[in-house]
Amino acid sequence: MNLLKEAQDWSDLFSPESASRKKSVMQAMHGILTQPGIRSLGPGAPSTEYFPFYAMNLEVGSTNAFATVGKEIPKSTTTIHAGKHDSFSGLSTYDLAIALQYGLGTGSAQLVQFMTDHVKMVHNPPYRNWKCILSAGTTSAFEIVLKMLAKSGDYLLVEQHTYTTVFETGLPLGIKFAQVRMDKDGLIPNDLDDILTNWDETTRGSRKPSLLYTIPTGQNPCGITQPLTRRQEIYRVAQKHNLFIVEDDPYYYIQLGLYKTASHATEPPTSVEDYVKTLVPSYLSIDIDGRVLRMDSFSKIIAPGARMGWVTASEQVIERMVRAHEVSVQNPSGFSQIAVFKLLHDGWGHLGFVQWLAHLRGEYTKRRDVLFEACELFLPREICGWVPSTAGFFAWISVDWTKHHKAGWISSLQIEKAIHSAAIDAGTLVVPGSWFLPDEGQSGMDKVFFRMTYAAASTDDIREAIKRFGAALRRVFHSQSQGKLGQADSGYQLQKL
Amino acid sequence: MNLLKEAQDWSDLFSPESASRKKSVMQAMHGILTQPGIRSLGPGAPSTEYFPFYAMNLEVGSTNAFATVGKEIPKSTTTIHAGKHDSFSGLSTYDLAIALQYGLGTGSAQLVQFMTDHVKMVHNPPYRNWKCILSAGTTSAFEIVLKMLAKSGDYLLVEQHTYTTVFETGLPLGIKFAQVRMDKDGLIPNDLDDILTNWDETTRGSRKPSLLYTIPTGQNPCGITQPLTRRQEIYRVAQKHNLFIVEDDPYYYIQLGLYKTASHATEPPTSVEDYVKTLVPSYLSIDIDGRVLRMDSFSKIIAPGARMGWVTASEQVIERMVRAHEVSVQNPSGFSQIAVFKLLHDGWGHLGFVQWLAHLRGEYTKRRDVLFEACELFLPREICGWVPSTAGFFAWISVDWTKHHKAGWISSLQIEKAIHSAAIDAGTLVVPGSWFLPDEGQSGMDKVFFRMTYAAASTDDIREAIKRFGAALRRVFHSQSQGKLGQADSGYQLQKL
Repeated sequence: MNLLKEAQDWSDLFSPESASRKKSVMQAMHGILTQPGIRSLGPGAPSTEYFPFYAMNLEVGSTNAFATVGKEIPKSTTTIHAGKHDSFSGLSTYDLAIALQYGLGTGSAQLVQFMTDHVKMVHNPPYRNWKCILSAGTTSAFEIVLKMLAKSGDYLLVEQHTYTTVFETGLPLGIKFAQVRMDKDGLIPNDLDDILTNWDETTRGSRKPSLLYTIPTGQNPCGITQPLTRRQEIYRVAQKHNLFIVEDDPYYYIQLGLYKTASHATEPPTSVEDYVKTLVPSYLSIDIDGRVLRMDSFSKIIAPGARMGWVTASEQVIERMVRAHEVSVQNPSGFSQIAVFKLLHDGWGHLGFVQWLAHLRGEYTKRRDVLFEACELFLPREICGWVPSTAGFFAWISVDWTKHHKAGWISSLQIEKAIHSAAIDAGTLVVPGSWFLPDEGQSGMDKVFFRMTYAAASTDDIREAIKRFGAALRRVFHSQSQGKLGQADSGYQLQKL
Repeated sequence: MNLLKEAQDWSDLFSPESASRKKSVMQAMHGILTQPGIRSLGPGAPSTEYFPFYAMNLEVGSTNAFATVGKEIPKSTTTIHAGKHDSFSGLSTYDLAIALQYGLGTGSAQLVQFMTDHVKMVHNPPYRNWKCILSAGTTSAFEIVLKMLAKSGDYLLVEQHTYTTVFETGLPLGIKFAQVRMDKDGLIPNDLDDILTNWDETTRGSRKPSLLYTIPTGQNPCGITQPLTRRQEIYRVAQKHNLFIVEDDPYYYIQLGLYKTASHATEPPTSVEDYVKTLVPSYLSIDIDGRVLRMDSFSKIIAPGARMGWVTASEQVIERMVRAHEVSVQNPSGFSQIAVFKLLHDGWGHLGFVQWLAHLRGEYTKRRDVLFEACELFLPREICGWVPSTAGFFAWISVDWTKHHKAGWISSLQIEKAIHSAAIDAGTLVVPGSWFLPDEGQSGMDKVFFRMTYAAASTDDIREAIKRFGAALRRVFHSQSQGKLGQADSGYQLQKL
């Protein structure tokens, strides 16, 4: 007997646009199509005989190549195959003819099933009627979810600094942003509670927010990962104020080892269970009310070009999202779906998949270490601060702009701009913290930050880029502050670049 | 010297949502990234070394197989290859590493260039600053375009009956529909002119429409193709009232041969030019003002699962669409892009592509003939009417509901429903005409129609389905009208099915 509750009813939350969407009449025909003996002259789908693709063979990473994390082994690949009519011939449940035909707004049943099994193993959501569907990437999913759960004039609760696309999507839709302060463990529950408890519709110009957007793991841009206790506290505040939580978690599987531990070579997991134990639990995994919509992405763990992710939430919320899919993206590309299905289902299996994820963790741990070691070596500690990230792609460096000799005369934003430009002149591209604020820092900033990624540059380039960024910082502060930041930092010699 | 004009200024047309979209700050970094000597710690894209795909080999239809239309030749395929770093090794301009990385809101430069060349050859737009980008399928493109060019309360001008997704997308957004009557050549220019000339804001409850949506070739659901003269007349009305035209043309390449001509076997084109001469010119090809946004789709000519199409319009309109892409689909799947690029660019080339299109035309011409021949054989002419379609996927059958003995007591919509149900009971799925009306026929219908497609069913199934539909029609009219529609039709004997 299943003792879990059903999800709470969220129908009041849907925007008028979302609530008024009806089932597509063409989709409604699917029920009739499955009746025995029916000949269809209905939906205008082309015959699969006119798809000019007969087979797809993909050379992919073999589990041999990464099931031994950190050990030097030769790269090895294996070939996975998808034929046009494999399901007809009994070779597979999924083939090119199915993948390349029109599909359902949920994504294909085969890949949805694989991801649902994965979600069950990793998150095991503690309520009864959750569902998982495929998105056409998290950028698409977020846009759909925002329009589904908010309307013009509504506030979205977000972390103090957050992912630029959130503003870029929301502002043109008339969405406003209520920023929640963060500490070293991320979003502060008391601040969230205060904002909601003291919400004044008149001064705010809009009703109390019902939607929280958070990036709980390796937050973009701050690199912070909320510990489980923090997540539990935030969930309790959400219960108190009946908030719905959008958990955007593209870096969930990029949970890194401790900074500068003896070795990055940890043994690969020998079971999915073992692997899951090493991860901070998600909001989805503590969501007894069905108040979480979780967005996962293949972009950071398979490839961004797949333009595919998966979304997990209660049935009723997923149903509204499927309706939105039917009149927009429909579903992710069939080429993406079959490539990823063949890789995960036919190629790797669930264990191979998490071994790959553990392998990636090892790789990004090494990269993270290189970047923060370079920070220790090359950045002027008198004005710079950082905490090594324990997940994700990003380092978040604070710069004490009050030590600039013009501080007070020129704004923090102007100093940030000067550093950014000087860094580019020196040959390093970093991202100013103001870009992660809804007003881009126009109304003032207490602190100056820069986001840096270790995701893609080579080890040498990471070191050189940080070295040059340090030099640029010194130049901006030094030239205008008469040598206040001298030559004495970590053995670093200021030199012509 | 280029004597063509620039496109007219359409900036007044953009919705507040669209007009307020700013360039993505992350996209803005691309300019800096291309500066020599820059090391990037900026955009958080993963390293391509972590994409677990090393090569893709696709077995595709060879031009040998279809360059001889209608002749019996063995199926032949050829293998096209995409490696991970082909562009690095100089093997190709486009490879898996590029395709599977984050991309631009336009789609990849390589495939955009191929499609731009194709558009130039096929449509040669007669103004200076047109552009072509990739969409994530026309359903996605239409949703974006509608939000870009209309806002809640606005009217969209559409054909009397039109594609269901148009309503399903528009109604939840608060879009209203002004239906323009059609004759055998499609949308009637005088009716369009009358609607606009006599537009009364008070009775209509909204400003005069500025947007016309039309499916000019093989219209869905009516199967009608507007001749060039009709398009020119409509374009002149659009100029008179300064309308912007959305040309949705997924069936453009499915322009069929004459009904029941001696042979479907026509010689394949030996040049792109020869092929283009056989097509009715598009709105884009007569668009001297830049007032047309044209949506093309790979769904009917390559595969729907690619979830990809292309859009052509003036630079300014395309620029707004790219901004919308950046916060939604981003771009079509990289798997789709590289598969289609490799097929069209490396595999077929421009001539091979149009030979494939000519081959498809031959195939759909045969299918069309089978369906209409079956209509002649099996449908009761006393109550049914049709004109063989000259393009697209659909037959549009009118049923004279006034001959039903309860006509006048029950509505046309009820009679339509009875026929639809009887057809399903008899084993044939067709689509009721009311589904293609914004109110689904609730406010009454002069005529009863059914849409049927010959796109996918086998020849035998098409015949059997039409036969059963004919029987269902007779049953609905016969049983209630005492044998009015007897056994005398085209030698057809009513029998137990």
